[in-house]
Amino acid sequence: MNDNYSEEPLKIFSLNGNVPLAEKIADVFGCELGKCSIKQFSDGEIAISIEESVRGVHTYLIQSTNKPVNDYYMELLIMIDAMRRASAKTINVVLPYYAYARQDRTSKPHEPITAKLIANMLVEAGVTRVLTLDLHTVQVQGFFDVPVDNLFTIPLFARYYLDKGMNGDDYVVVSPKNSGIQRSRSLAEYLETTLAIVDQGETPEEEGYVIGDVQGRNCIMVDDILNTGETFAKAAELLLAAGAKSVYACASHALFNSQAKDVLEAAPIEDICVTDSCLTDDNLHPRQTTYITCSELIGEALKRIHDNTPMSPLFRLQK
Amino acid sequence: MNDNYSEEPLKIFSLNGNVPLAEKIADVFGCELGKCSIKQFSDGEIAISIEESVRGVHTYLIQSTNKPVNDYYMELLIMIDAMRRASAKTINVVLPYYAYARQDRTSKPHEPITAKLIANMLVEAGVTRVLTLDLHTVQVQGFFDVPVDNLFTIPLFARYYLDKGMNGDDYVVVSPKNSGIQRSRSLAEYLETTLAIVDQGETPEEEGYVIGDVQGRNCIMVDDILNTGETFAKAAELLLAAGAKSVYACASHALFNSQAKDVLEAAPIEDICVTDSCLTDDNLHPRQTTYITCSELIGEALKRIHDNTPMSPLFRLQK
Amino acid sequence: MNDNYSEEPLKIFSLNGNVPLAEKIADVFGCELGKCSIKQFSDGEIAISIEESVRGVHTYLIQSTNKPVNDYYMELLIMIDAMRRASAKTINVVLPYYAYARQDRTSKPHEPITAKLIANMLVEAGVTRVLTLDLHTVQVQGFFDVPVDNLFTIPLFARYYLDKGMNGDDYVVVSPKNSGIQRSRSLAEYLETTLAIVDQGETPEEEGYVIGDVQGRNCIMVDDILNTGETFAKAAELLLAAGAKSVYACASHALFNSQAKDVLEAAPIEDICVTDSCLTDDNLHPRQTTYITCSELIGEALKRIHDNTPMSPLFRLQK
Amino acid sequence: MNDNYSEEPLKIFSLNGNVPLAEKIADVFGCELGKCSIKQFSDGEIAISIEESVRGVHTYLIQSTNKPVNDYYMELLIMIDAMRRASAKTINVVLPYYAYARQDRTSKPHEPITAKLIANMLVEAGVTRVLTLDLHTVQVQGFFDVPVDNLFTIPLFARYYLDKGMNGDDYVVVSPKNSGIQRSRSLAEYLETTLAIVDQGETPEEEGYVIGDVQGRNCIMVDDILNTGETFAKAAELLLAAGAKSVYACASHALFNSQAKDVLEAAPIEDICVTDSCLTDDNLHPRQTTYITCSELIGEALKRIHDNTPMSPLFRLQK
Amino acid sequence: MNDNYSEEPLKIFSLNGNVPLAEKIADVFGCELGKCSIKQFSDGEIAISIEESVRGVHTYLIQSTNKPVNDYYMELLIMIDAMRRASAKTINVVLPYYAYARQDRTSKPHEPITAKLIANMLVEAGVTRVLTLDLHTVQVQGFFDVPVDNLFTIPLFARYYLDKGMNGDDYVVVSPKNSGIQRSRSLAEYLETTLAIVDQGETPEEEGYVIGDVQGRNCIMVDDILNTGETFAKAAELLLAAGAKSVYACASHALFNSQAKDVLEAAPIEDICVTDSCLTDDNLHPRQTTYITCSELIGEALKRIHDNTPMSPLFRLQK
Amino acid sequence: MNDNYSEEPLKIFSLNGNVPLAEKIADVFGCELGKCSIKQFSDGEIAISIEESVRGVHTYLIQSTNKPVNDYYMELLIMIDAMRRASAKTINVVLPYYAYARQDRTSKPHEPITAKLIANMLVEAGVTRVLTLDLHTVQVQGFFDVPVDNLFTIPLFARYYLDKGMNGDDYVVVSPKNSGIQRSRSLAEYLETTLAIVDQGETPEEEGYVIGDVQGRNCIMVDDILNTGETFAKAAELLLAAGAKSVYACASHALFNSQAKDVLEAAPIEDICVTDSCLTDDNLHPRQTTYITCSELIGEALKRIHDNTPMSPLFRLQK
Repeated sequence: MNDNYSEEPLKIFSLNGNVPLAEKIADVFGCELGKCSIKQFSDGEIAISIEESVRGVHTYLIQSTNKPVNDYYMELLIMIDAMRRASAKTINVVLPYYAYARQDRTSKPHEPITAKLIANMLVEAGVTRVLTLDLHTVQVQGFFDVPVDNLFTIPLFARYYLDKGMNGDDYVVVSPKNSGIQRSRSLAEYLETTLAIVDQGETPEEEGYVIGDVQGRNCIMVDDILNTGETFAKAAELLLAAGAKSVYACASHALFNSQAKDVLEAAPIEDICVTDSCLTDDNLHPRQTTYITCSELIGEALKRIHDNTPMSPLFRLQK
Repeated sequence: MNDNYSEEPLKIFSLNGNVPLAEKIADVFGCELGKCSIKQFSDGEIAISIEESVRGVHTYLIQSTNKPVNDYYMELLIMIDAMRRASAKTINVVLPYYAYARQDRTSKPHEPITAKLIANMLVEAGVTRVLTLDLHTVQVQGFFDVPVDNLFTIPLFARYYLDKGMNGDDYVVVSPKNSGIQRSRSLAEYLETTLAIVDQGETPEEEGYVIGDVQGRNCIMVDDILNTGETFAKAAELLLAAGAKSVYACASHALFNSQAKDVLEAAPIEDICVTDSCLTDDNLHPRQTTYITCSELIGEALKRIHDNTPMSPLFRLQK
Repeated sequence: MNDNYSEEPLKIFSLNGNVPLAEKIADVFGCELGKCSIKQFSDGEIAISIEESVRGVHTYLIQSTNKPVNDYYMELLIMIDAMRRASAKTINVVLPYYAYARQDRTSKPHEPITAKLIANMLVEAGVTRVLTLDLHTVQVQGFFDVPVDNLFTIPLFARYYLDKGMNGDDYVVVSPKNSGIQRSRSLAEYLETTLAIVDQGETPEEEGYVIGDVQGRNCIMVDDILNTGETFAKAAELLLAAGAKSVYACASHALFNSQAKDVLEAAPIEDICVTDSCLTDDNLHPRQTTYITCSELIGEALKRIHDNTPMSPLFRLQK
Repeated sequence: MNDNYSEEPLKIFSLNGNVPLAEKIADVFGCELGKCSIKQFSDGEIAISIEESVRGVHTYLIQSTNKPVNDYYMELLIMIDAMRRASAKTINVVLPYYAYARQDRTSKPHEPITAKLIANMLVEAGVTRVLTLDLHTVQVQGFFDVPVDNLFTIPLFARYYLDKGMNGDDYVVVSPKNSGIQRSRSLAEYLETTLAIVDQGETPEEEGYVIGDVQGRNCIMVDDILNTGETFAKAAELLLAAGAKSVYACASHALFNSQAKDVLEAAPIEDICVTDSCLTDDNLHPRQTTYITCSELIGEALKRIHDNTPMSPLFRLQK
Repeated sequence: MNDNYSEEPLKIFSLNGNVPLAEKIADVFGCELGKCSIKQFSDGEIAISIEESVRGVHTYLIQSTNKPVNDYYMELLIMIDAMRRASAKTINVVLPYYAYARQDRTSKPHEPITAKLIANMLVEAGVTRVLTLDLHTVQVQGFFDVPVDNLFTIPLFARYYLDKGMNGDDYVVVSPKNSGIQRSRSLAEYLETTLAIVDQGETPEEEGYVIGDVQGRNCIMVDDILNTGETFAKAAELLLAAGAKSVYACASHALFNSQAKDVLEAAPIEDICVTDSCLTDDNLHPRQTTYITCSELIGEALKRIHDNTPMSPLFRLQK
Repeated sequence: MNDNYSEEPLKIFSLNGNVPLAEKIADVFGCELGKCSIKQFSDGEIAISIEESVRGVHTYLIQSTNKPVNDYYMELLIMIDAMRRASAKTINVVLPYYAYARQDRTSKPHEPITAKLIANMLVEAGVTRVLTLDLHTVQVQGFFDVPVDNLFTIPLFARYYLDKGMNGDDYVVVSPKNSGIQRSRSLAEYLETTLAIVDQGETPEEEGYVIGDVQGRNCIMVDDILNTGETFAKAAELLLAAGAKSVYACASHALFNSQAKDVLEAAPIEDICVTDSCLTDDNLHPRQTTYITCSELIGEALKRIHDNTPMSPLFRLQK
């Protein structure tokens, strides 16, 4: 291990959610992933055994809770329990994608708040601190009383577009729906331009409309979770109908369900930039997809957690 | 007490935050407020004594945490402690205004999440359930694991504007800033019209701009907390500059700080509709202010809590 | 609802694990299952909405955690969270099959105790009490501090064999492995006969041997969980090799993995009696299978919980 | 920082209660106070931002909860929350004056125990350990399960009087009321003399009386909290009426409410010795007041906490 | 059971500490003690089995923790655990004598606060509320967050002395040591007379002295715990030496260790009035002992707890 | 202290349960036992004072809970409380014998689970981790969420018998009752032989029988707790009646109640090998007793805990 780091021992483990990303994060530290055995029996039960000592060690567990989400959360909870019983000094969980984050309130009576339930489960199992990437709503941080560092992807996307010269008045940043507008606004500031919003209505039948000026401009849509592709597809149509010149899109978490490839390839979108926070089969990726990696951002954050140095620089644009 | 209600005993107590509202809520039940003594010594300490037995009783504590907010929260916490030690069966807290709700995330590292701290304090003190009115962000519900019912004010404002015939295409509902857009969108649906947004910039120096179409239309601005009046005042100027015909405003929680009267009376706003969730001195109220009461909505919700009947009807427009 | 029951309201809900069993349990009460919507999105997340009021109601949630076990546990946890936020008076969980119960200790260092993790998750989510059926080890009761009633299946199997006249010295009850011997011993008492044990060795390569006298007798093997069928199959061979006349088997929880049908149909076992605690596809059932229902036992236990009458009579043989 | 201290990093922060005392305590360490911003908005809400990294740092938060007590407690709770979320290694709270300590029991049914509530709030917010100075009753230590070190002021007062030669039989130490007698007894031992008590009665109307021998002797009254001055004033009158030669007074915590200056200047008391545990306006101090500092005692205690050396020497008279 | 009481079921159980007192308390309710088996094995382990159903029942467990105190506390904790697992609705613990109450603070560093530990154990085991009699220090109430009602014995003693005409100026109430003065002061008010204190010094060698006027008067000493008798014996000597006419004594909790009989019979004390809160062998009682019962006071308090009627009348003198 | 060990400070304390064993364990570290005063007052209360600083120290508390078990558990709980309040860095409890471990389930309704209660008490008092020796059932590990290392005695007994050449087909390992068979099975593997079981029946009247082949072989009986000796005595008789050549016995925890010596000396058992986990009077030991020490095993385990090196090697036979 690089001897720049704190003298206290550290081990990074990956669960099954997104091993390639975990390996890239371990590369940032110049270390191997810790050894553990994770198997699933024929009755569906998961069995985990840590195959090296973690007694007195700071452990970092990396798990993306992409599909199958419930198996991956259970893997994580069982691993935390194993770490606690094996006397790990701290148990730091990295959730590049925090599934269930959209269930963060009761939209009508008699509903659960599953994002809070997940937070409670992690804390009860024994987690010491949490690192997330672009939580659906930042208030989810407050669902925990242990420290949570939520990294932002907008600087990564800003870097991507600035490198292509996609900034200034010819461009407009667009929120493809009437929530989560802060992301778009943040990108608009990086790209030194204005903001527009597509209000898609509550139901698929409602016809949406564009709020703000997109006439003759290139639109960059921003969203956090990209699953079915329908929000982007419908918004792209409305933007072109409102006079937009072209449409681009970026999203933090690319879940790409089984229909997404067809939906997005049929949509008038030039390029879809996503991070590698989630792992999906290659054959689910629309042809316009560009992947950028979040591994350096996460790796750098983990170093700072481990060395007790400030996180604040990570929240600025990496020049 | 009206014998429609559940046979189990109930008592409603008010702390000092907003006694007139508490009395109106008790009127809905046809009962008196419970007796308690709340005094503040010359060293600033608060002393509370409940002056009737609450052993085995369902208690409802009403406290608006308007100014002085810290004294009022401490009153509430002490009262909850007293109720618990005096063996109240349940302790139901009604917070018509939940102060600190805007501190619901760390906007930069090294910050507290005070809205969560408040939730933790209430739960630790012994609260059984919570009733709030138009929380700044609905995710604050998830800061609690005890049941929280969050009532909405938009149906009250919708009723107000519909009664005046202020609906349809001549009107546009406006969010005076780029967050909290759901409130405006909800009112727009009730008034069967569209939405616009004023993006005011991060700093006072930044000049804002209007997103969406307000040309020749009457604007109704919607916000949750009205303290300095500056957000409304600046937005009203920008709307008129963008061609609006006239500007109205409504806000759930009227804190009216010492400058608000001057700021708002100088602003080009026809009418400011607010609820009585907060109590302030009459001489702080701008002349355009119209108060509507939230006491019936809250009273009705408490009845439903006490009778174990569904809350869902309260979330629909009261015809 | 039958008016013999307690006057306090009660509602029984089923999750997706074993709806037919839940319906049979509800029949014991003469009531319908409560209405709720459970759906799984294309990204794998589960969303639950309770579709009737449970405010102030005693709720009973029935979930068998057969395959897919992690989805079914997550369903249950989310449902408990929803019940708590919807102000259910008590949340009683019925787990006819408690998956992960075999992971009840660390068999070597660095292992989790997943059965305890599950208990902690249920309690943290908000469960009031738990009803289980034939836990793998009874000590799992102590993993909870909320009340747990663990029902036994042996009286059901004893009834089954006694009705066929399968008791007395011609029969010997056999534990097919060197743990869980209490179950066999309990059945031997009911059938008024002796006990034998098959020690199968730690690894598949080890040849096992029979401890005790089976020569010329009909063997009834007893186990709790029947998944692959290999334990029964291998034990049956060893018993016949040791001179047994014939071999029967019974098991509380029939998981029947994809190989079990082949394994068991090829084994020299006359009849395999199992309960309906787990739900599996019909085409996975070996031809020798006889199902008996545990619904009456569970239903009767729930009545006693709800009426606050003693459970003790349920632990005796039902004549 | 002085390199005598432990190698682990330490930072001392002051909240607004008594900054001059905090600065004197930091001087004992030879370090600066940590940087943080504490502001109060026009609606009364407090906002705190820690302006340097505390990740992995042992933090010491100094707050005297003199007037306005509720604001100062809220400042402290918010700061603790911020420290926890910013990953401070330990959060050590120094409360030179613990307001609400007198509300340590229910004097009649239906009352809170606010001193316990405060303890619960501090622990729930995340405090690691607590340092107090002369708690009103020492049992308040037991309100916490985290370590609490309670320093005594009597050795400071003993030093003060011994330096003036005020000891021996010409002097008598007097408890000005019938509780808290241990403080007077402890001073009497240091001054090698006897004890007397003024029983002032339950109500202002009751005429009090002196228990013990004060005839012709100089009286030194001892109390912990000095707010209105009335206890001292009335006791001084009774002592002189009982034949005392002169009257002196000392008190640990000088709150001095708005009447205290008048009351005490009118009272026949020669000198009033108090510590600087509380901060009040100069114009509230009676002319007989002598301040001695508790900063060295507290600073020395913090060093011992930080270096893991024994506290016991601090509980002896500093020669 | 007398039908004046609440309709909800109630059962009173006694552990082994003081069965005669428990029976007298049950008599106040007109009911039998609940059936349970408590045995101690030859290895010292205690085994408890509740022999009737307590499901849904309000239970009251009576245990005096006189000698052997640790066995009696363990009995109580095990019984609470059994009650919780057997689904008692509430678990109300009555501790006529709360052993370890004197260990309520750390008198020097490195000491436990065992009175708090006991409180924590009771709460962790599952107690719903606690009833105590004359706690050594009232602050111990605050060691709990569940409701605690602490009954006073002084009105019982006042009644005893008033019935004998022992009040007015010929009598003086004396605290035999310099702590716990509130008890003496309270009795002095009932007997309409004044107070004196015996300061016995910190160590046996120190000669004590009397504070206050006892010359020619009959002294009534008051203490809470009477174990060795030495405090009373030494104080009686000092009082007579200071001119007292005669000496009486009363104490709430009569532990009477093996020397107490000799010590007290040798002391110049006319009469020692104690309650039956503790159970000791008859042959340990000094000949001057008069027992009065606390069973009616406790029984009446339990009725009020069960009926949810106010406790306040119990804190007044029973005429 | 041997400088092989971790640089962080460590102190080992013994309570009164088994001081000779604690001294042998300290010898393994080459250190003295920490100083503390434990006294019992004449009223039965225990008072503990730690007589050296433990601030920031890793502490190891050794307590065998042999008779008087409740006093020894209370000692331990009080000591943990003292350690926590004295700011020990970690509190590691070593329980060579965990009393109440057999009460690990409710054998019928209305019973406590005292083994869980004990675990809850230890955790609530503040224990960081636990080391046990041959727990009655391994599931008790799961009663804790803090790390528990359970050491096995079977390798010690295997070494003992192998050294005597007592292995192979002439020997058979016997479980003297129908539970706890894993211990016998493990020893059988070490001794390369087979297993038999004595089923003694539920009640003393029931005549037992031997399951398995003992004809002409030397039997080695294995049990964990040896208190009355009756299980071994009765089993030995049955084994000889079934044709056994001779009978030996070993047990982890030798409690030896007052009858055990007579019972066992009268029984046809050649040799009884036990560990020194429990301390009893010499005159209680049957003449056949051989003691082997568990101090090296425990000492080695503590070193590994303190150095954060793996425990796994300890679970193998010490060659």
